[in-house]
Amino acid sequence: MARVAFDELASAMERALLRLGFSAPRAAACARLFAEASLDGVYTHGFERFPRFASYVAAGWVRPEAEPVLELSLGALERWDGRLGPGNLNAAAMTDRAMALARSSGIGCVGLRNTNHWMRGGSYGLRAAEAGCALVAWTNTTPNMPAWGAKSACAGNNPLVVALPRPGGHLVLDMAMSQFSYGKLEAYRDRGEELPVEGGFDAAGLPSKDPAAILASRRPMPVGFWKGSGLSLLLDLAAALVSGGDSVQGIGEREAEYGLSQVFIALDLGRLPDPDGMRARVEAFVDYLQAAEPERQGGRIYYPGERSALTRAQNLEMGIPVEDRTWAEVRALAGD
Amino acid sequence: MARVAFDELASAMERALLRLGFSAPRAAACARLFAEASLDGVYTHGFERFPRFASYVAAGWVRPEAEPVLELSLGALERWDGRLGPGNLNAAAMTDRAMALARSSGIGCVGLRNTNHWMRGGSYGLRAAEAGCALVAWTNTTPNMPAWGAKSACAGNNPLVVALPRPGGHLVLDMAMSQFSYGKLEAYRDRGEELPVEGGFDAAGLPSKDPAAILASRRPMPVGFWKGSGLSLLLDLAAALVSGGDSVQGIGEREAEYGLSQVFIALDLGRLPDPDGMRARVEAFVDYLQAAEPERQGGRIYYPGERSALTRAQNLEMGIPVEDRTWAEVRALAGD
Repeated sequence: MARVAFDELASAMERALLRLGFSAPRAAACARLFAEASLDGVYTHGFERFPRFASYVAAGWVRPEAEPVLELSLGALERWDGRLGPGNLNAAAMTDRAMALARSSGIGCVGLRNTNHWMRGGSYGLRAAEAGCALVAWTNTTPNMPAWGAKSACAGNNPLVVALPRPGGHLVLDMAMSQFSYGKLEAYRDRGEELPVEGGFDAAGLPSKDPAAILASRRPMPVGFWKGSGLSLLLDLAAALVSGGDSVQGIGEREAEYGLSQVFIALDLGRLPDPDGMRARVEAFVDYLQAAEPERQGGRIYYPGERSALTRAQNLEMGIPVEDRTWAEVRALAGD
Repeated sequence: MARVAFDELASAMERALLRLGFSAPRAAACARLFAEASLDGVYTHGFERFPRFASYVAAGWVRPEAEPVLELSLGALERWDGRLGPGNLNAAAMTDRAMALARSSGIGCVGLRNTNHWMRGGSYGLRAAEAGCALVAWTNTTPNMPAWGAKSACAGNNPLVVALPRPGGHLVLDMAMSQFSYGKLEAYRDRGEELPVEGGFDAAGLPSKDPAAILASRRPMPVGFWKGSGLSLLLDLAAALVSGGDSVQGIGEREAEYGLSQVFIALDLGRLPDPDGMRARVEAFVDYLQAAEPERQGGRIYYPGERSALTRAQNLEMGIPVEDRTWAEVRALAGD
């Protein structure tokens, strides 16, 4: 494990992307989104994922220069074709588009089909919050989680992002519908740790805290058991219907996870009056939350997005922790 | 426990509402929404809850004849003041309003402040689906669930509704952010049953399947532990900011649970073309889902809304099960 400065990390990925056929501005923007995910502590969907992303470009599943095209406009609701462009660039562009619609109509919605893994969903929540907008966005995935009552993975973990701007620190929630991502399960296994709560089922079908057993069975637990399973199904089908793209079912018929469907809903909160001082109360919300009695003496209650902000500050100062193997791979991709 | 026909149940509540000061059409509509919740098996938020609703009317916290008024329009986003009208009538009206906005802009959003408990959230999901629209809606509540890491109830369980129309049976998810509602916990306790999964914490702060212990501690478990806790906080603050109304914090300062904030987002799916036959695939979705290998041999995988539809058919035929005590209370309220 090394610690690498943000700029150095972003620069290595940018050079790799140029070699993969990205134009200069797109290479810079794409690398920055990867580096920011790691900066904020979402290592599994940042730099550490980059070699896999590069392999998808090489395979033709991610097309470096493809940009989304508008297919349909109904005023505040638009449908775009992502043309298999890079998932993070597509998602950033569609977040901006949903916000542009919200500027004129209060709310704006984009359905995006035929796109790719957006990597860290929280990136788009932060992006909207920085611009004073609320964001509700979600993506579908390849089948990677059993629906409640099923043994085989027929549902996606379909991450959902909800974000609100707050001057003292944006509120950003980025949650997959499985209790733990595969990346998190692998990290627990590699550290030889048990999960803090039951995170899936073992080969015998029993709830388990053993990350290796869950990785072997491919049966992660949905968030809230039957509830997260239901939400996963609805988010998937809503993304497919709104975007006109594939559902988890269709994505599962491909050789790899590409051609996803996503929804971006932005609300322009800046245009809403604030007669009762609600914004000040949201600003003071952290005080309210942290004034609650903690479960454990001396314990701290975090708001969604707080840990990421703390990690960001630390990683900016100390450098971003990266796996030696990944660092070597990316430097090779960059031609160093 | 008696079984009472839908019309008889609705009629008793309608007569009670007339005596409580409701005009005839509003009494009929309000009673119907209560009766439909019980018809679909959501007993805790239907007929069984009616006496408590009546007591809120008597206390002045619910105003029978108050209708929402428009406060602000930004095109596809509107803000309404619910004026403490009956929560289910207000929510039905705002669902219709969000759909009207969606008819002209593709998507429509209503923020509703100063309203009341909407009872069964799924009612509005079904209502939108019947009209060919998707609905995403949520409400906040009084503080009734500890945020993750907290001992005291500082968060709401803030139910979320997501619905999609489907000719073969609408997909409707209605989920509170606690794993079990208080009503469900009471039902398990009264039947002397253990919860199927850990549903909260006991007095010692340990995860528990004992409904009585959780009812005593007032510490229900958030859906997905830290994840549902985070989603609860975001839904609450989003409802407050969009509607300009109170957050869970403000509601907790009142003597009872009234003056809530809600959001209704509708999408007019009927105006979206269907080039790749996605609608047919959503229609066939149940086949896909139920073709997955079940966890238990002979087990059935349900889609969100399926159990309600099955219960509805059964209750239409056999009558709706009602507690004898509630039936007596409502008949007294009706002046029988």
